[in-house]
Amino acid sequence: MPRMASSRKVVEFFYDIVSPYSWMAFEVLCRYRNVWNLDLKFKPAYLGGVMHDSGNRPPGMVPNKFHYMTKDLERVSGYFGVPLYPPSNVFEAMFEKGTLNAMRFVTAVAEKEKEGDVLVERVSRELWKRIWSTDQDVTQPASLTEAGLKAGLSANELEEILTLSKSQPIKDKLKSVTQEALDYQCFGFPSTVCHANGKAELFFGSDRFELMAHCIGEKWVGPHPDKPTSKM
Amino acid sequence: MPRMASSRKVVEFFYDIVSPYSWMAFEVLCRYRNVWNLDLKFKPAYLGGVMHDSGNRPPGMVPNKFHYMTKDLERVSGYFGVPLYPPSNVFEAMFEKGTLNAMRFVTAVAEKEKEGDVLVERVSRELWKRIWSTDQDVTQPASLTEAGLKAGLSANELEEILTLSKSQPIKDKLKSVTQEALDYQCFGFPSTVCHANGKAELFFGSDRFELMAHCIGEKWVGPHPDKPTSKM
Repeated sequence: MPRMASSRKVVEFFYDIVSPYSWMAFEVLCRYRNVWNLDLKFKPAYLGGVMHDSGNRPPGMVPNKFHYMTKDLERVSGYFGVPLYPPSNVFEAMFEKGTLNAMRFVTAVAEKEKEGDVLVERVSRELWKRIWSTDQDVTQPASLTEAGLKAGLSANELEEILTLSKSQPIKDKLKSVTQEALDYQCFGFPSTVCHANGKAELFFGSDRFELMAHCIGEKWVGPHPDKPTSKM
Repeated sequence: MPRMASSRKVVEFFYDIVSPYSWMAFEVLCRYRNVWNLDLKFKPAYLGGVMHDSGNRPPGMVPNKFHYMTKDLERVSGYFGVPLYPPSNVFEAMFEKGTLNAMRFVTAVAEKEKEGDVLVERVSRELWKRIWSTDQDVTQPASLTEAGLKAGLSANELEEILTLSKSQPIKDKLKSVTQEALDYQCFGFPSTVCHANGKAELFFGSDRFELMAHCIGEKWVGPHPDKPTSKM
Protein backbone atom coordinates (compact mmCIF):
# COMPACT_ATOMS: atom_id res chain seq x y z
CA MET A 1 0.00 0.00 0.00
CA PRO A 2 1.51 3.36 -0.96
CA ARG A 3 2.29 5.66 1.91
CA MET A 4 0.40 8.93 2.16
CA ALA A 5 1.53 11.80 -0.05
CA SER A 6 2.00 14.03 2.99
CA SER A 7 4.83 11.82 4.25
CA ARG A 8 6.79 12.04 0.98
CA LYS A 9 10.25 13.49 1.38
CA VAL A 10 11.07 16.37 -0.93
CA VAL A 11 14.35 15.80 -2.75
CA GLU A 12 15.57 18.24 -5.40
CA PHE A 13 17.99 16.88 -7.97
CA PHE A 14 20.10 19.46 -9.85
CA TYR A 15 21.82 18.10 -12.94
CA ASP A 16 23.21 18.72 -16.39
CA ILE A 17 23.45 15.95 -18.98
CA VAL A 18 27.11 16.89 -19.51
CA SER A 19 27.85 15.27 -16.14
CA PRO A 20 28.26 11.47 -16.13
CA TYR A 21 28.12 11.24 -12.32
CA SER A 22 24.76 13.04 -12.56
CA TRP A 23 23.51 10.21 -14.75
CA MET A 24 24.54 7.64 -12.11
CA ALA A 25 22.80 9.58 -9.35
CA PHE A 26 19.73 10.18 -11.53
CA GLU A 27 19.22 6.45 -12.17
CA VAL A 28 19.76 5.56 -8.54
CA LEU A 29 17.29 8.21 -7.34
CA CYS A 30 14.72 7.06 -9.92
CA ARG A 31 15.08 3.51 -8.56
CA TYR A 32 14.71 4.68 -4.95
CA ARG A 33 11.89 7.14 -5.68
CA ASN A 34 9.14 4.76 -4.50
CA VAL A 35 11.31 2.73 -2.13
CA TRP A 36 12.12 5.84 -0.10
CA ASN A 37 8.76 7.49 -0.88
CA LEU A 38 10.39 10.54 -2.41
CA ASP A 39 8.82 13.61 -3.91
CA LEU A 40 11.70 13.75 -6.39
CA LYS A 41 11.94 17.08 -8.19
CA PHE A 42 14.08 17.13 -11.32
CA LYS A 43 15.99 20.38 -11.66
CA PRO A 44 17.63 20.59 -15.08
CA ALA A 45 20.28 23.32 -14.80
CA TYR A 46 23.46 24.54 -16.47
CA LEU A 47 26.71 23.20 -15.03
CA GLY A 48 28.80 25.79 -16.91
CA GLY A 49 27.02 28.53 -14.97
CA VAL A 50 27.55 26.79 -11.64
CA MET A 51 31.26 26.23 -12.28
CA HIS A 52 31.75 29.82 -13.39
CA ASP A 53 29.77 31.47 -10.58
CA SER A 54 31.20 29.25 -7.82
CA GLY A 55 34.77 29.64 -9.14
CA ASN A 56 35.17 25.88 -9.42
CA ARG A 57 37.26 24.09 -12.07
CA PRO A 58 36.28 20.86 -13.84
CA PRO A 59 38.12 17.81 -12.43
CA GLY A 60 39.38 17.06 -15.94
CA MET A 61 41.79 20.01 -15.72
CA VAL A 62 44.07 17.99 -13.40
CA PRO A 63 45.52 15.13 -15.49
CA ASN A 64 45.65 12.58 -12.65
CA LYS A 65 42.08 13.46 -11.70
CA PHE A 66 40.98 13.03 -15.29
CA HIS A 67 42.67 9.64 -15.45
CA TYR A 68 41.07 8.63 -12.14
CA MET A 69 37.65 9.81 -13.29
CA THR A 70 37.90 7.60 -16.37
CA LYS A 71 38.74 4.53 -14.26
CA ASP A 72 36.26 5.44 -11.55
CA LEU A 73 33.40 5.90 -14.03
CA GLU A 74 34.08 2.46 -15.43
CA ARG A 75 33.90 0.92 -11.94
CA VAL A 76 30.93 2.99 -10.80
CA SER A 77 28.86 2.40 -13.95
CA GLY A 78 29.44 -1.34 -13.65
CA TYR A 79 28.49 -1.31 -9.99
CA PHE A 80 25.44 0.95 -10.50
CA GLY A 81 24.38 -0.91 -13.63
CA VAL A 82 24.27 2.13 -15.91
CA PRO A 83 25.59 1.53 -19.47
CA LEU A 84 28.17 4.32 -19.53
CA TYR A 85 30.83 4.42 -22.23
CA PRO A 86 32.79 7.68 -22.47
CA PRO A 87 32.73 9.46 -25.83
CA SER A 88 35.83 9.11 -28.01
CA ASN A 89 36.72 12.75 -27.35
CA VAL A 90 35.67 13.54 -23.79
CA PHE A 91 37.17 17.03 -23.79
CA GLU A 92 35.36 18.03 -26.97
CA ALA A 93 32.05 16.57 -25.79
CA MET A 94 32.23 18.13 -22.33
CA PHE A 95 34.01 21.42 -22.80
CA GLU A 96 33.99 22.44 -26.47
CA LYS A 97 30.54 21.45 -27.66
CA GLY A 98 28.77 22.08 -24.38
CA THR A 99 25.18 21.47 -23.30
CA LEU A 100 23.57 24.91 -23.17
CA ASN A 101 21.15 24.11 -26.04
CA ALA A 102 20.46 20.65 -24.65
CA MET A 103 19.63 21.96 -21.17
CA ARG A 104 17.39 24.71 -22.64
CA PHE A 105 15.67 21.91 -24.53
CA VAL A 106 15.16 19.88 -21.33
CA THR A 107 13.90 23.03 -19.60
CA ALA A 108 11.37 23.54 -22.42
CA VAL A 109 10.21 19.91 -22.07
CA ALA A 110 9.68 20.50 -18.35
CA GLU A 111 7.76 23.69 -19.07
CA LYS A 112 5.49 22.01 -21.64
CA GLU A 113 4.82 19.00 -19.42
CA LYS A 114 1.81 20.17 -17.49
CA GLU A 115 1.53 17.28 -15.06
CA GLY A 116 4.22 14.99 -13.74
CA ASP A 117 7.74 14.67 -15.05
CA VAL A 118 7.77 11.45 -17.05
CA LEU A 119 8.92 13.26 -20.18
CA VAL A 120 11.67 15.24 -18.44
CA GLU A 121 12.93 11.97 -17.01
CA ARG A 122 12.83 10.16 -20.38
CA VAL A 123 14.29 13.02 -22.42
CA SER A 124 17.14 13.51 -19.91
CA ARG A 125 17.92 9.80 -20.03
CA GLU A 126 17.97 9.77 -23.85
CA LEU A 127 20.34 12.75 -23.89
CA TRP A 128 22.66 11.13 -21.33
CA LYS A 129 22.65 7.99 -23.48
CA ARG A 130 23.68 10.00 -26.55
CA ILE A 131 26.61 11.77 -24.92
CA TRP A 132 27.68 9.13 -22.36
CA SER A 133 26.80 5.84 -24.03
CA THR A 134 26.59 6.01 -27.82
CA ASP A 135 28.95 8.93 -28.50
CA GLN A 136 26.41 11.03 -30.39
CA ASP A 137 25.92 14.75 -30.74
CA VAL A 138 23.62 16.66 -28.35
CA THR A 139 24.05 20.17 -29.73
CA GLN A 140 22.08 20.15 -33.02
CA PRO A 141 18.27 20.45 -33.31
CA ALA A 142 18.18 17.13 -35.21
CA SER A 143 19.98 15.41 -32.30
CA LEU A 144 17.58 16.84 -29.74
CA THR A 145 14.62 15.84 -31.92
CA GLU A 146 15.92 12.27 -32.18
CA ALA A 147 16.27 12.06 -28.39
CA GLY A 148 12.76 13.52 -28.00
CA LEU A 149 11.24 10.99 -30.40
CA LYS A 150 12.83 8.11 -28.48
CA ALA A 151 11.43 9.60 -25.29
CA GLY A 152 7.92 9.36 -26.75
CA LEU A 153 7.26 12.91 -27.94
CA SER A 154 5.73 13.50 -31.39
CA ALA A 155 7.45 15.38 -34.23
CA ASN A 156 4.91 18.20 -33.86
CA GLU A 157 5.44 18.51 -30.13
CA LEU A 158 9.20 18.54 -30.66
CA GLU A 159 9.01 21.35 -33.21
CA GLU A 160 7.09 23.39 -30.68
CA ILE A 161 9.53 22.50 -27.87
CA LEU A 162 12.56 23.40 -30.01
CA THR A 163 11.07 26.84 -30.77
CA LEU A 164 10.18 27.28 -27.11
CA SER A 165 13.71 26.31 -26.08
CA LYS A 166 15.09 29.38 -27.89
CA SER A 167 12.67 31.79 -26.20
CA GLN A 168 13.66 34.28 -23.53
CA PRO A 169 11.38 32.81 -20.83
CA ILE A 170 13.09 29.41 -21.19
CA LYS A 171 16.58 30.96 -21.18
CA ASP A 172 15.53 32.81 -18.03
CA LYS A 173 14.05 29.69 -16.47
CA LEU A 174 17.30 27.74 -16.96
CA LYS A 175 19.21 30.66 -15.43
CA SER A 176 16.88 30.81 -12.44
CA VAL A 177 17.10 27.04 -11.72
CA THR A 178 20.89 27.30 -11.98
CA GLN A 179 20.71 30.18 -9.52
CA GLU A 180 18.58 28.06 -7.16
CA ALA A 181 21.42 25.53 -7.11
CA LEU A 182 23.93 28.30 -6.38
CA ASP A 183 21.66 29.58 -3.61
CA TYR A 184 22.13 26.18 -1.94
CA GLN A 185 25.88 26.92 -2.22
CA CYS A 186 26.38 24.26 -4.81
CA PHE A 187 29.70 24.06 -6.71
CA GLY A 188 29.08 21.22 -9.18
CA PHE A 189 26.65 18.51 -10.27
CA PRO A 190 25.00 16.30 -9.34
CA SER A 191 23.73 18.27 -6.37
CA THR A 192 20.94 16.66 -4.40
CA VAL A 193 19.08 18.71 -1.81
CA CYS A 194 17.18 16.69 0.79
CA HIS A 195 14.52 18.48 2.79
CA ALA A 196 14.31 16.73 6.13
CA ASN A 197 13.60 17.84 9.69
CA GLY A 198 13.01 21.42 8.53
CA LYS A 199 16.46 21.63 6.98
CA ALA A 200 17.77 21.56 3.42
CA GLU A 201 20.83 19.31 3.19
CA LEU A 202 23.07 19.49 0.12
CA PHE A 203 24.82 16.33 -1.09
CA PHE A 204 27.37 16.59 -3.87
CA GLY A 205 28.16 13.68 -6.20
CA SER A 206 26.87 10.16 -6.64
CA ASP A 207 28.62 8.60 -3.64
CA ARG A 208 26.56 9.89 -0.73
CA PHE A 209 23.45 7.71 -0.92
CA GLU A 210 24.27 5.86 2.28
CA LEU A 211 24.54 9.18 4.12
CA MET A 212 21.50 10.60 2.32
CA ALA A 213 19.44 7.60 3.48
CA HIS A 214 20.66 8.22 7.03
CA CYS A 215 19.66 11.89 6.73
CA ILE A 216 16.07 11.17 5.59
CA GLY A 217 15.61 8.17 7.89
CA GLU A 218 15.66 5.50 5.19
CA LYS A 219 17.86 2.49 4.40
CA TRP A 220 20.44 2.20 1.62
CA VAL A 221 20.56 -1.35 0.29
CA GLY A 222 22.94 -0.85 -2.63
CA PRO A 223 22.44 0.47 -6.15
CA HIS A 224 19.64 -2.02 -6.97
CA PRO A 225 16.89 -1.78 -4.35
CA ASP A 226 14.93 -4.50 -6.17
CA LYS A 227 17.94 -6.84 -5.76
CA PRO A 228 19.56 -5.63 -2.54
CA THR A 229 23.24 -6.41 -2.09
CA SER A 230 22.80 -5.60 1.56
CA LYS A 231 19.74 -5.14 3.73
CA MET A 232 18.73 -4.67 7.36
CA MET B 1 39.92 -18.89 13.43
CA PRO B 2 42.09 -16.41 11.55
CA ARG B 3 42.38 -16.96 7.81
CA MET B 4 45.76 -17.80 6.38
CA ALA B 5 48.17 -14.96 5.84
CA SER B 6 48.50 -15.83 2.18
CA SER B 7 44.88 -14.88 1.52
CA ARG B 8 45.25 -11.42 3.02
CA LYS B 9 44.48 -8.60 0.62
CA VAL B 10 47.16 -5.96 0.34
CA VAL B 11 45.74 -2.47 0.78
CA GLU B 12 48.02 0.57 0.82
CA PHE B 13 46.69 3.64 2.58
CA PHE B 14 48.34 6.96 1.66
CA TYR B 15 47.53 9.79 4.05
CA ASP B 16 48.59 13.03 5.67
CA ILE B 17 47.24 14.09 9.06
CA VAL B 18 46.34 17.48 7.54
CA SER B 19 43.46 15.72 5.76
CA PRO B 20 40.27 15.16 7.80
CA TYR B 21 38.77 12.78 5.24
CA SER B 22 41.95 10.72 5.62
CA TRP B 23 41.17 10.37 9.32
CA MET B 24 37.68 9.04 8.52
CA ALA B 25 39.06 6.52 6.02
CA PHE B 26 41.88 5.53 8.41
CA GLU B 27 39.46 4.68 11.22
CA VAL B 28 37.15 2.76 8.90
CA LEU B 29 40.02 0.75 7.41
CA CYS B 30 41.37 -0.01 10.90
CA ARG B 31 37.91 -1.34 11.85
CA TYR B 32 37.69 -3.48 8.69
CA ARG B 33 41.29 -4.68 8.84
CA ASN B 34 40.37 -8.05 10.38
CA VAL B 35 36.82 -8.21 9.03
CA TRP B 36 38.11 -8.03 5.44
CA ASN B 37 41.37 -9.84 6.29
CA LEU B 38 43.51 -6.97 5.03
CA ASP B 39 47.25 -6.63 4.94
CA LEU B 40 46.83 -2.91 5.59
CA LYS B 41 49.97 -0.90 4.85
CA PHE B 42 50.10 2.60 6.31
CA LYS B 43 51.80 5.03 3.93
CA PRO B 44 52.37 8.35 5.71
CA ALA B 45 53.07 10.88 2.94
CA TYR B 46 53.04 14.62 2.28
CA LEU B 47 49.83 16.01 0.80
CA GLY B 48 51.48 19.32 -0.13
CA GLY B 49 53.80 17.45 -2.48
CA VAL B 50 50.95 15.50 -4.08
CA MET B 51 48.88 18.64 -4.65
CA HIS B 52 51.84 20.48 -6.12
CA ASP B 53 53.08 17.69 -8.37
CA SER B 54 49.62 16.69 -9.63
CA GLY B 55 48.61 20.32 -10.22
CA ASN B 56 45.57 19.94 -7.97
CA ARG B 57 44.11 22.71 -5.80
CA PRO B 58 42.74 22.26 -2.27
CA PRO B 59 38.91 22.16 -2.18
CA GLY B 60 39.01 25.02 0.31
CA MET B 61 39.99 27.44 -2.46
CA VAL B 62 36.41 27.40 -3.80
CA PRO B 63 34.22 29.11 -1.16
CA ASN B 64 31.09 26.96 -1.80
CA LYS B 65 33.24 23.82 -1.66
CA PHE B 66 34.78 24.96 1.60
CA HIS B 67 31.34 25.60 3.07
CA TYR B 68 30.14 22.20 1.84
CA MET B 69 33.20 20.47 3.26
CA THR B 70 32.48 21.96 6.68
CA LYS B 71 28.89 20.68 6.63
CA ASP B 72 29.85 17.37 5.05
CA LEU B 73 32.57 16.69 7.62
CA GLU B 74 30.04 17.25 10.40
CA ARG B 75 27.65 14.72 8.84
CA VAL B 76 30.34 12.22 7.90
CA SER B 77 32.09 12.30 11.27
CA GLY B 78 28.76 11.73 13.02
CA TYR B 79 27.92 8.85 10.72
CA PHE B 80 31.39 7.28 10.92
CA GLY B 81 31.64 7.86 14.65
CA VAL B 82 34.91 9.80 14.57
CA PRO B 83 35.09 12.76 17.00
CA LEU B 84 36.01 15.43 14.46
CA TYR B 85 35.73 19.11 15.38
CA PRO B 86 37.36 21.52 12.92
CA PRO B 87 40.04 23.85 14.35
CA SER B 88 39.00 27.45 14.95
CA ASN B 89 41.15 28.60 12.05
CA VAL B 90 40.98 25.88 9.42
CA PHE B 91 42.96 27.84 6.82
CA GLU B 92 45.80 28.52 9.20
CA ALA B 93 45.89 24.91 10.44
CA MET B 94 45.77 23.40 6.97
CA PHE B 95 47.62 25.81 4.72
CA GLU B 96 49.76 28.16 6.78
CA LYS B 97 51.16 25.93 9.51
CA GLY B 98 51.32 22.77 7.44
CA THR B 99 52.27 19.22 8.36
CA LEU B 100 55.73 18.69 6.85
CA ASN B 101 57.37 18.30 10.29
CA ALA B 102 54.53 16.15 11.55
CA MET B 103 54.70 13.77 8.58
CA ARG B 104 58.48 13.52 8.89
CA PHE B 105 57.88 12.63 12.53
CA VAL B 106 55.37 9.90 11.57
CA THR B 107 57.83 8.63 8.97
CA ALA B 108 60.53 8.42 11.64
CA VAL B 109 58.14 6.49 13.92
CA ALA B 110 57.50 4.05 11.07
CA GLU B 111 61.24 3.70 10.48
CA LYS B 112 61.99 3.05 14.15
CA GLU B 113 59.19 0.53 14.53
CA LYS B 114 60.93 -2.68 13.59
CA GLU B 115 57.90 -4.97 13.59
CA GLY B 116 54.26 -4.17 12.95
CA ASP B 117 52.72 -0.73 12.80
CA VAL B 118 50.92 -0.27 16.10
CA LEU B 119 52.91 2.86 16.88
CA VAL B 120 52.42 4.46 13.45
CA GLU B 121 48.71 3.85 13.86
CA ARG B 122 48.58 5.32 17.38
CA VAL B 123 50.83 8.30 16.65
CA SER B 124 48.86 9.17 13.49
CA ARG B 125 45.61 9.01 15.44
CA GLU B 126 46.97 11.25 18.21
CA LEU B 127 48.13 13.81 15.64
CA TRP B 128 44.76 13.76 13.86
CA LYS B 129 43.10 14.28 17.25
CA ARG B 130 45.27 17.32 17.90
CA ILE B 131 44.57 19.07 14.62
CA TRP B 132 41.03 17.82 13.90
CA SER B 133 39.53 17.36 17.34
CA THR B 134 41.15 19.42 20.07
CA ASP B 135 42.50 22.33 17.98
CA GLN B 136 46.10 21.91 19.09
CA ASP B 137 49.40 22.59 17.37
CA VAL B 138 51.17 19.86 15.39
CA THR B 139 54.21 21.81 14.19
CA GLN B 140 56.39 22.18 17.31
CA PRO B 141 58.64 19.45 18.77
CA ALA B 142 56.79 19.73 22.11
CA SER B 143 53.49 19.05 20.34
CA LEU B 144 54.88 16.03 18.53
CA THR B 145 56.36 14.75 21.78
CA GLU B 146 53.01 15.11 23.55
CA ALA B 147 51.30 13.11 20.80
CA GLY B 148 54.04 10.48 20.99
CA LEU B 149 53.71 10.14 24.76
CA LYS B 150 49.95 9.60 24.45
CA ALA B 151 50.67 6.97 21.81
CA GLY B 152 52.77 5.04 24.30
CA LEU B 153 56.31 6.04 23.37
CA SER B 154 58.81 6.98 26.07
CA ALA B 155 60.47 10.40 26.40
CA ASN B 156 63.81 8.84 25.43
CA GLU B 157 62.41 7.17 22.35
CA LEU B 158 60.76 10.41 21.34
CA GLU B 159 63.96 12.38 21.62
CA GLU B 160 65.60 9.87 19.31
CA ILE B 161 62.66 9.94 16.88
CA LEU B 162 62.62 13.74 16.80
CA THR B 163 66.32 13.81 15.90
CA LEU B 164 65.79 11.09 13.32
CA SER B 165 62.85 13.02 11.81
CA LYS B 166 65.22 15.84 10.84
CA SER B 167 67.71 13.54 9.13
CA GLN B 168 68.19 13.32 5.36
CA PRO B 169 67.20 9.64 5.11
CA ILE B 170 63.82 10.39 6.71
CA LYS B 171 63.26 13.44 4.51
CA ASP B 172 64.07 11.25 1.52
CA LYS B 173 61.81 8.46 2.76
CA LEU B 174 58.82 10.83 3.04
CA LYS B 175 59.56 12.10 -0.47
CA SER B 176 59.77 8.59 -1.86
CA VAL B 177 56.47 7.45 -0.27
CA THR B 178 54.85 10.63 -1.65
CA GLN B 179 56.29 9.72 -5.04
CA GLU B 180 54.83 6.19 -4.72
CA ALA B 181 51.40 7.80 -4.34
CA LEU B 182 52.02 9.95 -7.41
CA ASP B 183 53.15 6.88 -9.33
CA TYR B 184 49.64 5.49 -8.75
CA GLN B 185 48.44 8.74 -10.39
CA CYS B 186 47.05 10.01 -7.13
CA PHE B 187 45.91 13.67 -6.86
CA GLY B 188 44.92 13.99 -3.20
CA PHE B 189 44.43 12.11 0.09
CA PRO B 190 43.19 9.77 1.30
CA SER B 191 44.28 7.50 -1.53
CA THR B 192 43.71 3.81 -0.99
CA VAL B 193 45.29 1.33 -3.37
CA CYS B 194 43.71 -2.13 -3.36
CA HIS B 195 45.72 -4.96 -4.87
CA ALA B 196 43.22 -7.47 -6.19
CA ASN B 197 43.12 -9.84 -9.16
CA GLY B 198 46.61 -8.80 -10.19
CA LYS B 199 45.63 -5.16 -10.46
CA ALA B 200 46.24 -2.09 -8.32
CA GLU B 201 43.03 -0.08 -7.99
CA LEU B 202 43.18 3.48 -6.68
CA PHE B 203 40.28 4.83 -4.62
CA PHE B 204 40.22 8.50 -3.70
CA GLY B 205 38.38 9.80 -0.65
CA SER B 206 36.44 8.25 2.21
CA ASP B 207 33.23 7.54 0.30
CA ARG B 208 34.21 4.54 -1.80
CA PHE B 209 34.16 1.71 0.76
CA GLU B 210 31.12 0.07 -0.79
CA LEU B 211 32.88 -0.03 -4.15
CA MET B 212 36.18 -1.05 -2.55
CA ALA B 213 34.46 -4.01 -0.89
CA HIS B 214 33.02 -4.99 -4.25
CA CYS B 215 36.50 -4.74 -5.78
CA ILE B 216 38.16 -7.04 -3.23
CA GLY B 217 35.20 -9.42 -2.99
CA GLU B 218 34.11 -8.42 0.50
CA LYS B 219 30.95 -6.92 2.01
CA TRP B 220 30.44 -3.39 3.24
CA VAL B 221 28.10 -3.33 6.22
CA GLY B 222 28.35 0.33 7.16
CA PRO B 223 30.93 2.29 9.15
CA HIS B 224 30.70 0.04 12.21
CA PRO B 225 31.32 -3.58 11.22
CA ASP B 226 30.85 -4.67 14.84
CA LYS B 227 27.36 -3.10 14.81
CA PRO B 228 26.31 -3.43 11.16
CA THR B 229 23.65 -0.99 9.91
CA SER B 230 23.18 -3.31 6.98
CA LYS B 231 24.30 -6.84 6.29
CA MET B 232 23.87 -9.63 3.79
